[in-house]
Amino acid sequence: MAITQRVTILGGGPVGALLASYLGRRGYHVTLYERRPDLRSQDVGGGRSINLACSDRGWLALERVGIAETVRRSAIPMRGRMLHAEDGQLTFLPYGFDGQAIYAISRTLLNKHLLDFAARQPQVELHFEQRALSVDFQRHQLRLCDERSGERRTIDVDRLIGADGAFSALRESMRRQDRFDYSQHYVSHGYKELAIPPGPDGDFALDPHALHIWPRGGYMLIALPNADRSFTATLFMPFEGARASFAEVADAAALERLFAQSFADVPALIPNLTEQFFDNPTSSLVTVRCSPWVRDGRYALIGDAAHAVVPFYGQGMIAGFEDCRVLDECLTEAGDDWAQALAAYQSARKPNGDAIADLALDNFIEMRDLVRTPGFQLRRRIERRLHQLLPQRFTPLYSMVTFSHLPYAEARRRGQLQAAMLDALAAEEGIEELLDSEQFMPLAEQAVAKLESMSSARSK
Amino acid sequence: MAITQRVTILGGGPVGALLASYLGRRGYHVTLYERRPDLRSQDVGGGRSINLACSDRGWLALERVGIAETVRRSAIPMRGRMLHAEDGQLTFLPYGFDGQAIYAISRTLLNKHLLDFAARQPQVELHFEQRALSVDFQRHQLRLCDERSGERRTIDVDRLIGADGAFSALRESMRRQDRFDYSQHYVSHGYKELAIPPGPDGDFALDPHALHIWPRGGYMLIALPNADRSFTATLFMPFEGARASFAEVADAAALERLFAQSFADVPALIPNLTEQFFDNPTSSLVTVRCSPWVRDGRYALIGDAAHAVVPFYGQGMIAGFEDCRVLDECLTEAGDDWAQALAAYQSARKPNGDAIADLALDNFIEMRDLVRTPGFQLRRRIERRLHQLLPQRFTPLYSMVTFSHLPYAEARRRGQLQAAMLDALAAEEGIEELLDSEQFMPLAEQAVAKLESMSSARSK
Repeated sequence: MAITQRVTILGGGPVGALLASYLGRRGYHVTLYERRPDLRSQDVGGGRSINLACSDRGWLALERVGIAETVRRSAIPMRGRMLHAEDGQLTFLPYGFDGQAIYAISRTLLNKHLLDFAARQPQVELHFEQRALSVDFQRHQLRLCDERSGERRTIDVDRLIGADGAFSALRESMRRQDRFDYSQHYVSHGYKELAIPPGPDGDFALDPHALHIWPRGGYMLIALPNADRSFTATLFMPFEGARASFAEVADAAALERLFAQSFADVPALIPNLTEQFFDNPTSSLVTVRCSPWVRDGRYALIGDAAHAVVPFYGQGMIAGFEDCRVLDECLTEAGDDWAQALAAYQSARKPNGDAIADLALDNFIEMRDLVRTPGFQLRRRIERRLHQLLPQRFTPLYSMVTFSHLPYAEARRRGQLQAAMLDALAAEEGIEELLDSEQFMPLAEQAVAKLESMSSARSK
Repeated sequence: MAITQRVTILGGGPVGALLASYLGRRGYHVTLYERRPDLRSQDVGGGRSINLACSDRGWLALERVGIAETVRRSAIPMRGRMLHAEDGQLTFLPYGFDGQAIYAISRTLLNKHLLDFAARQPQVELHFEQRALSVDFQRHQLRLCDERSGERRTIDVDRLIGADGAFSALRESMRRQDRFDYSQHYVSHGYKELAIPPGPDGDFALDPHALHIWPRGGYMLIALPNADRSFTATLFMPFEGARASFAEVADAAALERLFAQSFADVPALIPNLTEQFFDNPTSSLVTVRCSPWVRDGRYALIGDAAHAVVPFYGQGMIAGFEDCRVLDECLTEAGDDWAQALAAYQSARKPNGDAIADLALDNFIEMRDLVRTPGFQLRRRIERRLHQLLPQRFTPLYSMVTFSHLPYAEARRRGQLQAAMLDALAAEEGIEELLDSEQFMPLAEQAVAKLESMSSARSK
């Protein structure tokens, strides 16, 4: 670029901060506005953010900009799901193969690392407690409010990217323009965070190298490890309903009954369970989709602002990180022609934003219900065996999403074809005995060949 | 009611005005706020509103409140679709049976009648040029702006109903609350109105008792008669695209080519076609869905504010009229207990709002494309014959929607079952010859019996 160009970013969460680093390193003069105070110097909010799990797509986006190693030092590998049955029995289901893992990390810590890194780029300025109010697309102006003084001001913007989350101010201004498609859809479940402190010996109260799940059909509890040897547990439960629901669990006695019946091994791990349950907020879960994500070669949405998803595939923030990497690649390919780069970014990412939203909704049912059924566990065993026998030709859906860089939309498409095939194999007479014998190989060959022919037929 | 209760209505379009009459006649003190000037005393906007067609559901809602006869005097019956082929050939497809018709009426005239009627109710107050800004659900307050003075004020509301259209201010305030589902989706087509004046003899330039359609696949022109012997034509065409699109038709030469090729019989009817085309705005078409429609036993959305639909089934406003009738019935059944009445209103109407939105989208394809195919016309012939032979047991989808009071959702459900049956009959060897012979009766019996068993199985 002959002249240094200016880019304004809304939102200093993980995605906005990472994007600031990407653009700063490309040579842009970046100004970032964040509504909340600087979490590097102040204790901000909290209690409402589900723990994060970083996986391959996230690491790649962090590596490209040179921050992966710093982040990795604060992360705890989780190699599978640890299912807690009603009777306390534990079953470990590995996520991947050969030690593949997803990495638990605190959202706040990750955000601090990313802000520090962005602030070290030569031409990146970070401004906090600056709330975006609206954007004027005719005048190319942004209206801001200083959260400390309440003062409002209008600034000119050359290029503006909204990384300002599920309730994005940029998207809201875009939504009010003609021909902007938009949807916000809430699931009927809410969530509540509960902290599990370290055990009496100061060590983790549960195995730290697993994501713990208490699947109970209509509701579930999960727990992820923190670097300080505590766990953050999250209860997902319907807001309303006659059985287990937030409306029903209205007093300490009802809470005690719920945990005694459904999560009997948990109360011993959380001394102040009643207090936490009734003090912590119950939050809702939204899926947001919209189109277009870009306009006028100057404006773009990224991360949750473009595609807020429910947290059940652990890919929400990671999809935003991948957006940053792809946008950077589009800028490279277009020689920093923004109109061209933004158009390419949108056509590359919009189908994947939709796909990860759908995958996350599907996975909620898997996590809270299917995961505990014998049929599900058999299909997982078949998947693993197929991958073991034909590693180049068959990869389970979870691995395509979590341990590959295949576009989400393609992963979902293949996953749908695989699901029918797995159902058919699982219904075969005597499959459980056959699975580990040599006789399974021709079956596997046949099933995967069929899959390949269907997949190539569909993609034509 | 022992004490007169107050209801505030936002929006003085046809639905808001009709609702004011319904509630006024129930004994409520009604205050209605409309953003635009009073169209009874001033010429307001125009040029952008597609002509309306009133049909049975609309008439029933108007009859209940005693305004149907007044409106009917301004309406022109249209007994079918008149298809204009590319070569100018005309084909008339009747809408119903035995002279059933839909009635063309000007939106402005209808709105004037309804405002006049509402203003004559003893306890109804109408306020114009009052724009609703937002609603505070904690304080039960409405924020208004006087469009003449720009002055803003806050008023208390006991009960508030938003009849304020596709971009409803009440709905916008509801959307910002937690757990409100919402979507706005635009079709890729826009529309433009073109006036067809009376012919040189002062009479209608086309047959006034038909809805004229020039179906051309990806785009279409329609025309509806007006009381002053003019027609209002509306061109529906994609915004973008290489062939016929608003982007492509950018100058007089391109416009002339489009009409010469596609609507050859039209330019003779519109002397100032070029002027009109480039002066009149191109408007977009949105479908809005949301949930819930009601809250706190005090707030409700009605008409387009709850369910804006595309205009292709001619049921948009009529669905809003039916909302008014059903809400009135719910109030009667609940003895004017609003919490109970609004809950009943929502569960009665929400599935029908979704269904008419889907039906309208489906009918766009039918109108612009299918209607001209031989297969479509054959299926229509089969439908008519089935109804003729078994009038109590078979009613075509269009008739269920237009000439019955069956809930839209039920009409759509039956229509989907019928579609498969019609496809099967249309594929029968020699069906065209068989249709009018006595031999068709056993086939008809069999097909309808199968339909009935599927329908009752599904509804269980």
